[in-house]
Amino acid sequence: MLRNRKEIQVEWGDCDPAGIVYFPRFFEYFDACTNALFEAAGFRKAEMLKHYGLVGIPLVEASAQFYAPASFGELVAVESQIVAWGKSSFRVEHRLYRGSELAAEGREKRVWTVRDPASPKGLKGEAIPGDVKERFAG
Amino acid sequence: MLRNRKEIQVEWGDCDPAGIVYFPRFFEYFDACTNALFEAAGFRKAEMLKHYGLVGIPLVEASAQFYAPASFGELVAVESQIVAWGKSSFRVEHRLYRGSELAAEGREKRVWTVRDPASPKGLKGEAIPGDVKERFAG
Amino acid sequence: MLRNRKEIQVEWGDCDPAGIVYFPRFFEYFDACTNALFEAAGFRKAEMLKHYGLVGIPLVEASAQFYAPASFGELVAVESQIVAWGKSSFRVEHRLYRGSELAAEGREKRVWTVRDPASPKGLKGEAIPGDVKERFAG
Amino acid sequence: MLRNRKEIQVEWGDCDPAGIVYFPRFFEYFDACTNALFEAAGFRKAEMLKHYGLVGIPLVEASAQFYAPASFGELVAVESQIVAWGKSSFRVEHRLYRGSELAAEGREKRVWTVRDPASPKGLKGEAIPGDVKERFAG
Repeated sequence: MLRNRKEIQVEWGDCDPAGIVYFPRFFEYFDACTNALFEAAGFRKAEMLKHYGLVGIPLVEASAQFYAPASFGELVAVESQIVAWGKSSFRVEHRLYRGSELAAEGREKRVWTVRDPASPKGLKGEAIPGDVKERFAG
Repeated sequence: MLRNRKEIQVEWGDCDPAGIVYFPRFFEYFDACTNALFEAAGFRKAEMLKHYGLVGIPLVEASAQFYAPASFGELVAVESQIVAWGKSSFRVEHRLYRGSELAAEGREKRVWTVRDPASPKGLKGEAIPGDVKERFAG
Repeated sequence: MLRNRKEIQVEWGDCDPAGIVYFPRFFEYFDACTNALFEAAGFRKAEMLKHYGLVGIPLVEASAQFYAPASFGELVAVESQIVAWGKSSFRVEHRLYRGSELAAEGREKRVWTVRDPASPKGLKGEAIPGDVKERFAG
Repeated sequence: MLRNRKEIQVEWGDCDPAGIVYFPRFFEYFDACTNALFEAAGFRKAEMLKHYGLVGIPLVEASAQFYAPASFGELVAVESQIVAWGKSSFRVEHRLYRGSELAAEGREKRVWTVRDPASPKGLKGEAIPGDVKERFAG
C-alpha cells in the first residue's frame, strides 16, 4: 500500500499553556496528512472533490494515542497509509515521529460522501470508485 | 458519578468547506467540556493547576465516533462524566446531542501531570489526590 | 445603532504557551460576535445566507489592538455594533472587556458576498438590502 | 533589512463553509511567518525565549487587508520583514501571494515581553537587546 511521509513544523499557535501541542491539533495534522496521502496518490483534494462530486471525506471515527508530547519549534514527521478499504469507507493510520521516537498514532475511518438532499443529514456515503483504490495499491 | 451538561454554539469558524463541524473542533468541544465538568465539581482549571502544581491534564488517548454532522448556527449539548479513575489517570466520556439525537461520542484518557525536569519529556504523572476524586462521587 | 453583548469563556485551547489567548483566537471571538450581532438583529447566519443567497460576509480588513492579555478560565464580554454601512460593505467594532477593563478592540470591514462564476475570485460583492440595514437601526 | 519567504499549504481545516481561508487563520499564518523570520535571523523561537528569559513576543496591534480569497489546496507564499524597531516593541509586515498576485497583507506590532509578578498583567515589556536587532540588519 502506498505510504506517504509529511513533515510538520510545530507552531507556537499549535501549543497550549503547558507548552505542548494542544491535542486537537494532532487531529488537524493527521487530517492534513490524509490529504497529502491522497495527493501522493495523484488526487489533489480540491480537484478530487470536483471530479467525483464529493462534499468531502468526513470521519465517522477518529482516535489517537499520545506517547510523548511535542513542543513548539519541533519538526515532526508523520507516516500515513490507508490500511483498509470498505465499500464506501476506508481506514487511515498515521504514525507521528519526533526524530526516531514514535510520539503519537492516529486512526481515522472516513466515508466517501456526496450531497443527498433526500437525507435528513443532507449527506450520504457512496461506493468508492475502483480507480481510486487502485492508485493506492502502490 | 457527577455528570455535567454544557451547551455549545457551533460557530462559522468551527466548520469546514463541507459546511459541517471540522472534526478536530469536536475534540476542542470535548476538551472544554472536561474543563466544565471539573468546574462543576468545584475545580476551576486555572486555580486547580496552581493549587496542585499541575502542568495540565494532558491526554494519552482520545477517540470519537461521529454519527451525524453538526452545522454552524446549531446549538448542541454535551453530557460529560468521568467513568473510571486510575492511580494517576482517568477516563472521561462525552455524549454530544443535537436536540434529542446523539450526534457524536468522545472518550478521553487523561493524566494528572506535573513538571519533572529529570524526565526526557519534562513531565510525569502523579497520583490523583483523594479529595479530587471525592468531589466527583456526587 | 443596535449593540450586542456576548460573553465568552476563554478556553484552555484558546491559549498559547505564554498562558494567554493566542491572538488569532481574538479574531475568532470577534467573528462569532458579529454573527451574534446579526442574530440579535433577527438574522440567524445560516438562514440569512440561504435567504439572501450569500456565500458569506467575508472580511476585506480586520484589525485589533490588545491592551491586556486574557487567560484561560476567564470570562470576557464583547460589545459589538455596526458603525458604518457602505453600499455592499459595512464596518463592525468590538470592545472586549475583562470585568470593567477594556482589554482589546477589534474592527472589521466585511462585504455582502455572493457567488459569481464569471469572476476570477468566484465571488463578488452585492448591494446590502435596505431591510437588513433597517434591522440594526434599533 | 532581512526578509524571509515562507510557503504555506492552505489546508482543508483552514477553510470555512465559503470554501476560503477563515480569516483568523491568516493571522496564524502571519504569526508562523514572524517566527520563521526570527529563525532566518538565527533565532529559533523556543531557544530565543529561553536565552532571553522571554514569555513571548505578544502583539499589541494586528491588522490585515484581504484582497483575494485563498482556497484549500492552494500553495501561498508570504514575504515578511521587520519594518521598525522601537525600544521594546517592533513592527512586522507580511505580504501573502497566490502566484504573483498579492492576496493579503498583514501588520503586527509586538512587544519583547518578560514575566513581571509585580504587574497586574503579570507581564511587561523590556528593551530589545542590540544583538537581536543587528541580526536583522541583513
